[in-house]
Amino acid sequence: MQVDGWMEKVTFTTILRTDTGSSKVLLRPRTSQEVAHILRYCHERNLAVSPQGGNTGMVGGSVPVFDEIILSTTLMNQVMSFHDVSGVLVCQAGCILEELGRYVEERGFLMPLDLGAKGSCHIGGNVATNAGGLRFLRYGSLRGTVLGLEVVLADGTILNCLTSLRKDNTGYDLKQLFIGSEGTLGVITAVSILCPPKPSAVNVAFLGCPGFAEVLQTFSTCRQKLGEILSAFEFMDAECMKLVELHLRLASPVRESPFYVLIETSGSGAGHDAEKLSDFLEQVLGSGLVTDGTLATDQRRIKMLWSLRERITEALSRDGYVYKYDLSLPVERLYDLVSDLRARLGPRAKHVVGYGHLGDGNLHLNVTAEAFDVSLLGALEPYVYEWTARQRGSVSAEHGLGFKKRDVLCYSKPPEALQLMQQLKALLDPKGILNPYKTLPARA
Amino acid sequence: MQVDGWMEKVTFTTILRTDTGSSKVLLRPRTSQEVAHILRYCHERNLAVSPQGGNTGMVGGSVPVFDEIILSTTLMNQVMSFHDVSGVLVCQAGCILEELGRYVEERGFLMPLDLGAKGSCHIGGNVATNAGGLRFLRYGSLRGTVLGLEVVLADGTILNCLTSLRKDNTGYDLKQLFIGSEGTLGVITAVSILCPPKPSAVNVAFLGCPGFAEVLQTFSTCRQKLGEILSAFEFMDAECMKLVELHLRLASPVRESPFYVLIETSGSGAGHDAEKLSDFLEQVLGSGLVTDGTLATDQRRIKMLWSLRERITEALSRDGYVYKYDLSLPVERLYDLVSDLRARLGPRAKHVVGYGHLGDGNLHLNVTAEAFDVSLLGALEPYVYEWTARQRGSVSAEHGLGFKKRDVLCYSKPPEALQLMQQLKALLDPKGILNPYKTLPARA
Repeated sequence: MQVDGWMEKVTFTTILRTDTGSSKVLLRPRTSQEVAHILRYCHERNLAVSPQGGNTGMVGGSVPVFDEIILSTTLMNQVMSFHDVSGVLVCQAGCILEELGRYVEERGFLMPLDLGAKGSCHIGGNVATNAGGLRFLRYGSLRGTVLGLEVVLADGTILNCLTSLRKDNTGYDLKQLFIGSEGTLGVITAVSILCPPKPSAVNVAFLGCPGFAEVLQTFSTCRQKLGEILSAFEFMDAECMKLVELHLRLASPVRESPFYVLIETSGSGAGHDAEKLSDFLEQVLGSGLVTDGTLATDQRRIKMLWSLRERITEALSRDGYVYKYDLSLPVERLYDLVSDLRARLGPRAKHVVGYGHLGDGNLHLNVTAEAFDVSLLGALEPYVYEWTARQRGSVSAEHGLGFKKRDVLCYSKPPEALQLMQQLKALLDPKGILNPYKTLPARA
Repeated sequence: MQVDGWMEKVTFTTILRTDTGSSKVLLRPRTSQEVAHILRYCHERNLAVSPQGGNTGMVGGSVPVFDEIILSTTLMNQVMSFHDVSGVLVCQAGCILEELGRYVEERGFLMPLDLGAKGSCHIGGNVATNAGGLRFLRYGSLRGTVLGLEVVLADGTILNCLTSLRKDNTGYDLKQLFIGSEGTLGVITAVSILCPPKPSAVNVAFLGCPGFAEVLQTFSTCRQKLGEILSAFEFMDAECMKLVELHLRLASPVRESPFYVLIETSGSGAGHDAEKLSDFLEQVLGSGLVTDGTLATDQRRIKMLWSLRERITEALSRDGYVYKYDLSLPVERLYDLVSDLRARLGPRAKHVVGYGHLGDGNLHLNVTAEAFDVSLLGALEPYVYEWTARQRGSVSAEHGLGFKKRDVLCYSKPPEALQLMQQLKALLDPKGILNPYKTLPARA
C-alpha cells in the first residue's frame, strides 16, 4: 500500500471550475484486503473517506469537500479473468475504461459502455456512478451488464458478490445497491461485467438536419430502417459545432445546419449493414429530413466523426465558465428547454448549447459565460430544474448528484423515496464516513 | 375492493405437488390506494400478508404457508399508458403478460420478456420474481428494462418510482430493491417497462445435434453468424422430447437425436435475416454439428416449434412427481450434472432431463418419479446444490427462492451477503408481515 502524506490540492479545474477539494492524506491500496484494512481503521476512528477513481465526474462526487481521506483506486488496475466464450470480464475497480476496451477487443469483444472520459475514468467509478454514455442505446444500462461486484462496506467487511453468472435469483441483488450510489454505501473494489461480441462491421453517418422536428423524424426512420444494428443516435446543435470549430479547430464534415446527428451502426454483416444504411440515407435525404451527410466505414474517419461529438465538453470548457445540466426529458420536448433558455438569458449567456444522447432521451444542456456569475446562476436555477420536473424528467440523467447536485434530488424524487434512501445510508454507513456530503441532500 | 372471506385451499398441484397453502382471507384490491389501506391495517395489527399474482411460480413464493392473508393483484389489470414513440408501457401489476404482449404488439412493439406461463402470470409477479424466460438473451434482464415501479411498503406508504425515463441517476435506484425480492420488501402495484420495437422478421430453426459438445459449438457458430439477430438459443435433451411426445402427443419435427436446439432470430430485414440464417445452417449442417433441422417463418409453425420447448414443464408434470432444479452453470459444464445424476440415481428415477436457456447458462434440471420419495430427495439434495456451488453457479437462476428453496441460498451467497439481506428485510418490513417464510432462510 502506498500512503502519501502530502498536502494535495485536488484540482479538476478543466471540468468544474468552482470546486477544489483539499485533503491531507491520499491512500492508494492495491488489494481489496488493503481497502478493508483502511476502512476498518477509519470506521473505528470516525475518519471520513472519499473514494476516488479517475476523477472525471461532472458533479464533484469524487472530490473531498473538507479533509476527507482520499481512497484512490489507481493502483487497483489488474484484470482478474476473462472468459472468451461468455465474454465475462472480471477486473479490479481501478482499471481504466479505454485499456479494458483494448484488452477485450483483442479478444473479439467490446466493453458495453463508452464515454468521452474513457482515457482516464476507472471502471469502478463508472459503476459507482452508473455511467451511461455512448453505447447505452444498444447495450443498455450497467444494471444489466454488470454481473457481479466486490464491495468493501463502511466497517471494512468485504462483500463478495463477484459472480460471473448472467442469471442469479438467490435472494436480493445486493450489487444494485452500490451501482450508482457514488461511493456513499460502500467502496467497489472489483467488477464482473458482460462484454458483447465485437461487431464485425461498424459505420458512422454524420448528418445535417434543418430543424429539431427533422431530427426526431430522422430518429424514428432510423429505428425503423436500421433496427437491431443501430448502436448510437447522438445529436448536437449548431452552437456546439461553432464551439468545436472555434476552440478545437475541428472542421464540420457537412454543410452548416441548425442540427447535426451522429448515427452509428454495429452489426455482424458488412454487406447487410451497408444496404440497410443506404436504404435509410436514401429515405432521409429524399424526404428532406436530412440536408447533407457523410458516411465513414474506416476506423480513422469513424474516430474523427466521433471526436466532433465527444470533444464538445472540452470545447465548452475553453469557452469560459460552464453551467452544466444533464437531463432526461420526453424526447419530443428535449430541445424546447434549450430554445427557451436562449430567449430567457439573452446576452447574459455567451452560449447556450444542447447536445446529447437523443436515443435515450438524454439532453446535455450547457451555458457558457465569461466568468461565474451569481445572477446568471439565479436565472438558470431553479428554473431548469422546475422546467424538468414539470415534464416529469430527471435532473440528473447520467452524471449523478455528487456534491454539486445533491440538493436538487427533490425535483425528481418524492419525499418517501428520499426517506428510504436516507434509511439505506444509515443502515450501510451508520457513522457516515463514506463520501460524506454527496448524493443525498443535506438534512434540514 | 372485493373481500372474499371464504376458506380457500390454494392449490397449485399441477406444478408443486407437495405444497398446499391455506388461507381464510383473500383480498382483491383494484387500486394502489386500496393496497395501501390493506397494508396499513395489517401493519397496525401485525397481520401477515402474502402477495399473489398469477400464482405460477415454481418455488411457492406466492402461497401462504399458514394463514397469511392473500393479497391478489387479479383485479389490478389496467394499462395506464403507452407511449408509441418510446415504447414505454405503464400498467398495473395484475396485468397478464400475454395480454400485455397483444396490447403492445398491436402498436408495433414487443414485451421484453416471454415465458411459458404467459397466459396467466402477472407482470407484477414477473418483476417481483425477476423472471428471466425466453427473450432474456436478446433483451436482457428486467433490471434494465423495468424503468419504474410503484410499490406499497409494509406500513402502507406508497413509494412512487413510476418514472418512464431510460436514464435517471438521481439518488439510489430504489426500484431495484423490489425487483426479485418476491414480495418480501414491498408490494409492487404498478410497472413501467421499456418495450423494444416488434421485429418485422422472425425465424425459428429447430435442430438435432449428436452430442452436447456439438450443441456448444452450434451456439458459438450461431453467435458468430447470426450476431445481433439472435433472439433465443434454447436446448432440450432426448429425454425431454420423449416426454413431450408421450404425454402431449406432440411429434418431433426432426430425426431422433441426443439433443435438440431451438434458435430464434428477430430482425428488421427478412431478406438479410434469411441469408444469415441460411449461411449459418449451411455451416452447421456441413460440419456435422447438426444432423437434421427444420426452419419456420410463418407464425403458426413458429408457435408449434416453440411449444415443444415451452410445454416441457407440462409434460414433466404428467410424468409423475417432479424434483425441479433451476441452475446457472458455466455453459461448458452445463450438461455434466445431468449425465452425472442419471448415473447416480439409476432406476430410482423415472426420468432425469435437462433443458433450458443455454444462451444464458441456465439449466433446468428435472427428475421425475412415480411419487415423492424421501430417499430420492436425499440422493438429490444437497448433492445438486454442492455440485453447483463447486462450479460457482447459482442454485436459483431465474425461479427465485420462495418457500421451497430459501434454505439453499447459502450455496450461492456468502454469509456477509445473507446478513445484509436480513438487515434490508428488517429495515423495510420490521414486523415481518410481508410474505413471511419466503426468500430468506429461517434464522438459526
